[in-house]
Amino acid sequence: MQTAKAAVMPDFHQPLEVRSYPLPDEIEAGAALVRVEMAGICGTDVHLWKGQLPIPRPIILGHETVGLIARLGEGVERDWTGAPLAEGDRVTWSAGRLCGLCYNCSVLRQPTRCLNRSAYGISFASDEPPHFSGGYAEYIYLRPGTAIFKLEDVSPEAVLGAGCALVTAIHGLERMQVGWGDKVVVQGSGPVGLAALAVAKSSGASETTVIGGPAERLELAREFGAEHTINIDEVPEPAARLNQVMRLTGGRGADAVIECVGIPTAVAEGLEMCRDGGKYLVLGHYGDAGTTPLNPHVITRKQLTVYGSWASEPRHMAAAIDFLRKQGERFPFDRLISHRFPLDQAFEALQTTARWSSSKSVIVP
Amino acid sequence: MQTAKAAVMPDFHQPLEVRSYPLPDEIEAGAALVRVEMAGICGTDVHLWKGQLPIPRPIILGHETVGLIARLGEGVERDWTGAPLAEGDRVTWSAGRLCGLCYNCSVLRQPTRCLNRSAYGISFASDEPPHFSGGYAEYIYLRPGTAIFKLEDVSPEAVLGAGCALVTAIHGLERMQVGWGDKVVVQGSGPVGLAALAVAKSSGASETTVIGGPAERLELAREFGAEHTINIDEVPEPAARLNQVMRLTGGRGADAVIECVGIPTAVAEGLEMCRDGGKYLVLGHYGDAGTTPLNPHVITRKQLTVYGSWASEPRHMAAAIDFLRKQGERFPFDRLISHRFPLDQAFEALQTTARWSSSKSVIVP
Amino acid sequence: MQTAKAAVMPDFHQPLEVRSYPLPDEIEAGAALVRVEMAGICGTDVHLWKGQLPIPRPIILGHETVGLIARLGEGVERDWTGAPLAEGDRVTWSAGRLCGLCYNCSVLRQPTRCLNRSAYGISFASDEPPHFSGGYAEYIYLRPGTAIFKLEDVSPEAVLGAGCALVTAIHGLERMQVGWGDKVVVQGSGPVGLAALAVAKSSGASETTVIGGPAERLELAREFGAEHTINIDEVPEPAARLNQVMRLTGGRGADAVIECVGIPTAVAEGLEMCRDGGKYLVLGHYGDAGTTPLNPHVITRKQLTVYGSWASEPRHMAAAIDFLRKQGERFPFDRLISHRFPLDQAFEALQTTARWSSSKSVIVP
Amino acid sequence: MQTAKAAVMPDFHQPLEVRSYPLPDEIEAGAALVRVEMAGICGTDVHLWKGQLPIPRPIILGHETVGLIARLGEGVERDWTGAPLAEGDRVTWSAGRLCGLCYNCSVLRQPTRCLNRSAYGISFASDEPPHFSGGYAEYIYLRPGTAIFKLEDVSPEAVLGAGCALVTAIHGLERMQVGWGDKVVVQGSGPVGLAALAVAKSSGASETTVIGGPAERLELAREFGAEHTINIDEVPEPAARLNQVMRLTGGRGADAVIECVGIPTAVAEGLEMCRDGGKYLVLGHYGDAGTTPLNPHVITRKQLTVYGSWASEPRHMAAAIDFLRKQGERFPFDRLISHRFPLDQAFEALQTTARWSSSKSVIVP
Repeated sequence: MQTAKAAVMPDFHQPLEVRSYPLPDEIEAGAALVRVEMAGICGTDVHLWKGQLPIPRPIILGHETVGLIARLGEGVERDWTGAPLAEGDRVTWSAGRLCGLCYNCSVLRQPTRCLNRSAYGISFASDEPPHFSGGYAEYIYLRPGTAIFKLEDVSPEAVLGAGCALVTAIHGLERMQVGWGDKVVVQGSGPVGLAALAVAKSSGASETTVIGGPAERLELAREFGAEHTINIDEVPEPAARLNQVMRLTGGRGADAVIECVGIPTAVAEGLEMCRDGGKYLVLGHYGDAGTTPLNPHVITRKQLTVYGSWASEPRHMAAAIDFLRKQGERFPFDRLISHRFPLDQAFEALQTTARWSSSKSVIVP
Repeated sequence: MQTAKAAVMPDFHQPLEVRSYPLPDEIEAGAALVRVEMAGICGTDVHLWKGQLPIPRPIILGHETVGLIARLGEGVERDWTGAPLAEGDRVTWSAGRLCGLCYNCSVLRQPTRCLNRSAYGISFASDEPPHFSGGYAEYIYLRPGTAIFKLEDVSPEAVLGAGCALVTAIHGLERMQVGWGDKVVVQGSGPVGLAALAVAKSSGASETTVIGGPAERLELAREFGAEHTINIDEVPEPAARLNQVMRLTGGRGADAVIECVGIPTAVAEGLEMCRDGGKYLVLGHYGDAGTTPLNPHVITRKQLTVYGSWASEPRHMAAAIDFLRKQGERFPFDRLISHRFPLDQAFEALQTTARWSSSKSVIVP
Repeated sequence: MQTAKAAVMPDFHQPLEVRSYPLPDEIEAGAALVRVEMAGICGTDVHLWKGQLPIPRPIILGHETVGLIARLGEGVERDWTGAPLAEGDRVTWSAGRLCGLCYNCSVLRQPTRCLNRSAYGISFASDEPPHFSGGYAEYIYLRPGTAIFKLEDVSPEAVLGAGCALVTAIHGLERMQVGWGDKVVVQGSGPVGLAALAVAKSSGASETTVIGGPAERLELAREFGAEHTINIDEVPEPAARLNQVMRLTGGRGADAVIECVGIPTAVAEGLEMCRDGGKYLVLGHYGDAGTTPLNPHVITRKQLTVYGSWASEPRHMAAAIDFLRKQGERFPFDRLISHRFPLDQAFEALQTTARWSSSKSVIVP
Repeated sequence: MQTAKAAVMPDFHQPLEVRSYPLPDEIEAGAALVRVEMAGICGTDVHLWKGQLPIPRPIILGHETVGLIARLGEGVERDWTGAPLAEGDRVTWSAGRLCGLCYNCSVLRQPTRCLNRSAYGISFASDEPPHFSGGYAEYIYLRPGTAIFKLEDVSPEAVLGAGCALVTAIHGLERMQVGWGDKVVVQGSGPVGLAALAVAKSSGASETTVIGGPAERLELAREFGAEHTINIDEVPEPAARLNQVMRLTGGRGADAVIECVGIPTAVAEGLEMCRDGGKYLVLGHYGDAGTTPLNPHVITRKQLTVYGSWASEPRHMAAAIDFLRKQGERFPFDRLISHRFPLDQAFEALQTTARWSSSKSVIVP
């Protein structure tokens, strides 16, 4: 019986440790075994480590992964877009698996809220077969029904630099359509903010302002095409930031504002930045960060529409890969990757992300 | 020079008093002089009297009015829908006048936010000619460009029972479309709540729940077709009300929730009542009632869309009159009128509304 | 081995004949065996009999069916809405089965165009087990994945009177939303036309005109709430019908026009009936009836939006049943059923429908 | 009394001739006199010359114009976007004037169908004062209510190279939104086709195919970013073109197809190029070019949505100018201008356009 290594989180708040598990002898029909090339560390992994979601333990974290197909189960002949699949192909996949048939999938048509949803790196304990269900490992076992995508002409760095931020942004901006010619404000310059900027710019936003920091991130935002940036270190007062946005929008406010911060106060601040009849997208609140004082009269008087969007569907991953392939030069997501760690330093990788001292860290097993 | 009487508010917080002003000698082209038959007291009038908006004084309040055309200016041959107009015709009109050409009207297409907006009963001081610019008076002078509507087969009681609540609800539910088959919760059983209920029911809502009080109002809600009512006096705990809504919606939450309360805490409560992918309309916050603690994560996780809608446009008035004419039996708005006052008791009428001790008070000059 | 009878179509254009097939010994997990109570004859069955779609033969037709559960496979404990299911329950089901995961289901979100779609009464030959896959039979075998709906407080007559016309109309009017207050024209007074009328009326249409015939159908349309009807026998000229519609809509044309005829010329006629900025729904062209001369300039100049909608999804069936339960008195679909036939007269039933001499025929095995 | 020259069309089918008219002595409040710098010849001018619309004669054609403000009427202090205006400023304007208050403007919200609409170069006879109401002249008199736009950092060549094609495309693609990531087919490579391509590309189209000719136009399409082109001279068979589109879209058809040809047969051809659930925009049929055989079943079975869009509103001109300023390098519309004529050769300019032997001709008075 062959074994392979994985960085395992024994419990919340505990250091990751490298363990060995047996690889599956047999690959079910519809499944695939993948040799991990590179796994991304997402900010969400830090929240998971802190116990902010009730996940099973021990667990192999990692929901952003690129690998090479080692073995294919029966019937897996094509990827999710119809491209032929073979052993050795480089692939990524949608971390969330959905059923397509439950009430939320088929009646409400909210597949991200699938009642049978499970996600690699989040839903599966590692002490039960097939063990390998997260990205921080040498191998990962993809169950039947996983949306697999063959990667051609796209580097692992681009895929992981974009990570789950890009699919989150694609989904969010599908719900709150940025209109052609819109003036757009992005609150936040982390991965989600930069991804939202890229999607907004390529959706026809005529002028974009990114509010965030530190300076290097804003520099990257400008490279991604932001016409204006506001550094929160330099402009720490919300009222002063609002003033700047008003000045940049002819005193009217932005057509669309996208929250990519995850801090509740940002929402009240951002609503004030919208023009009459404007749009606001709450995109950064995947996790529960508590309440903030908010005035509903602003929504009424300005006749705003406020959108929420959570996680993403496989079709957003398909769109993301296509986007990276075609517009990778205009939006160099690969440049977000700042740190690389071997598998046995997975805990350091996580800690680096937890200290927000990296743009994006990856594990190269 | 002929004179007529009006109930004038000399300043904020002061009793209304009856004054006489000269009627205009001449009616401008495009204008009309109307003999007031009946004028509604709106909850907004109470807020205006308390000084919550910076309006001119002295002023004749009253933005819900029905009257008979006394004199027509040159060129006023048809009402806003194209029906022929003559002296003696019974009419009402859209209180808000908009220009159709400013940036907000023609670019942003948010005519309720018209940069040149003015409104009868709100924008005009009574000590300047033409003096008569509010409903609490024997006459009112309609300036050129007012959207006038001839009333046929609709009683003044129905028009004023519906008042500005119905046009507000029609506008709001145009923005947040109630889907055919939706389960709808209405927060509030005042005039706006009942109007929202009527529009939701007639838009295809399959099941409606009204949360409010007192009991008589909920009784009226049931007559308007509400399948369920929750009396806030009997269920004072938000958590208990949420439980009831969840029970009534198969544990999923409502497809659409409409806030018609004007109290900020209702918004946080109502967002929790939405299903995944549901809709929420902030309709009751015409005025600024301050902030409330709100959790943005709810909007993201549930993938909600939250709408704001403010006041109404003339086309909503056209739709309201048509609705009252055709569906007046199903939705007997005339029955909301509970108190009638002569013009010299206008202040009592206002106080009755301020004490919320009436369903709807009107002045019959 | 137990057997049961079915009316089988041996080939196109051949009389149906009653045959016996063995009932399945075993019910797969997820499946169900149902004793047919009543099966509807749909106009589409006539088209199928004429060979207008390439379906397998021999076949048991019938895609509108109500029955009692005879046996339940393992794991079938609840119906599609979550209601508990037991043997003896009265049920109906969505004839079309979809996968939820193919490209058309999950990327394009067009589940009626599911790449793995199959439909009872249309897709399965009767000479292979489980044989019973259409409604014209004593039993029907529901494969795993069928969307089953328990019927309570709804009669088989209502369900089959509505038939696949109602779900088709619900789907169509989900795509082309009838706005609250819209003036609507329905072209056609057959089952689809009446169903579209019912959905439009209950969606807030303020005034409806049904164009069709014969007189009894238009009488039924008026009972369903149509304000106006135009009898094509009395007004055979398209120009005269257009004139009537213009007169009924103040010379402007209808806000929304719904084609429920299936005759191509109706489309060119109906587009002219729309107002500037109006909407048109091509709903009656499930089958291919060829081309018609059409002027694209009309679509441009009037700034129309034209919608197509094909078949329906399970969620439309859920909505239909809820609608029949709640609004069955306002829209008495059960009254459409005009003829009943025993199973051995299935061919006569089909011929009656083919001659359009019935409102709706059903088979009662 | 000062006079100026204009190229006048005495009647349909007659050569244009240069005439002199007196310039207005006085400029009304709200009006402006503009010295024409450059006027575009639009394909529509050819149709007008042929008598395809019932316009007054004699007339000065020209609805695409750039000029310098010679004199400003009282009250004209700012342009339509709020920028300060002074004599000597370079400006353009929206040829169509709308009222903002008629039924079509304010109820139906279809301002291009304004009941009081008039347009420079189309609606005004030149033998009545103020005479100068078209672009083919030394001066043009802009009546009160004209939406004037100050031009800064945009060349007259860019504005006229884009001409009314760009505003038409912006309006059309506002109605039929190109989704981010959509595969788009543009039928036609004339000015409207290239403009539609530019708007689609900048709206997030992931892959575009332009069908048209001749080769130089397709070359320009590729410079505007078209990934694929199909030359109708090389692929004259509709079936072969459909095959190519299917091959380029993975056998599924395009997400969105935009008709910019004006020939009715293109519409039937283009509908077949759409994917299931796709979108189709009829944009090239400003004029009435008659009927074509079309199969409504295609719209139903594919569940298409078909949009019409006619002319444009002032806000589209505002967006166009902003777009030319910001994205002029990516989409070099100025390069479309291929021929320049002095005013006394206006008829040759028109004939050159009539022979389709120019990309775009302009008059430089």
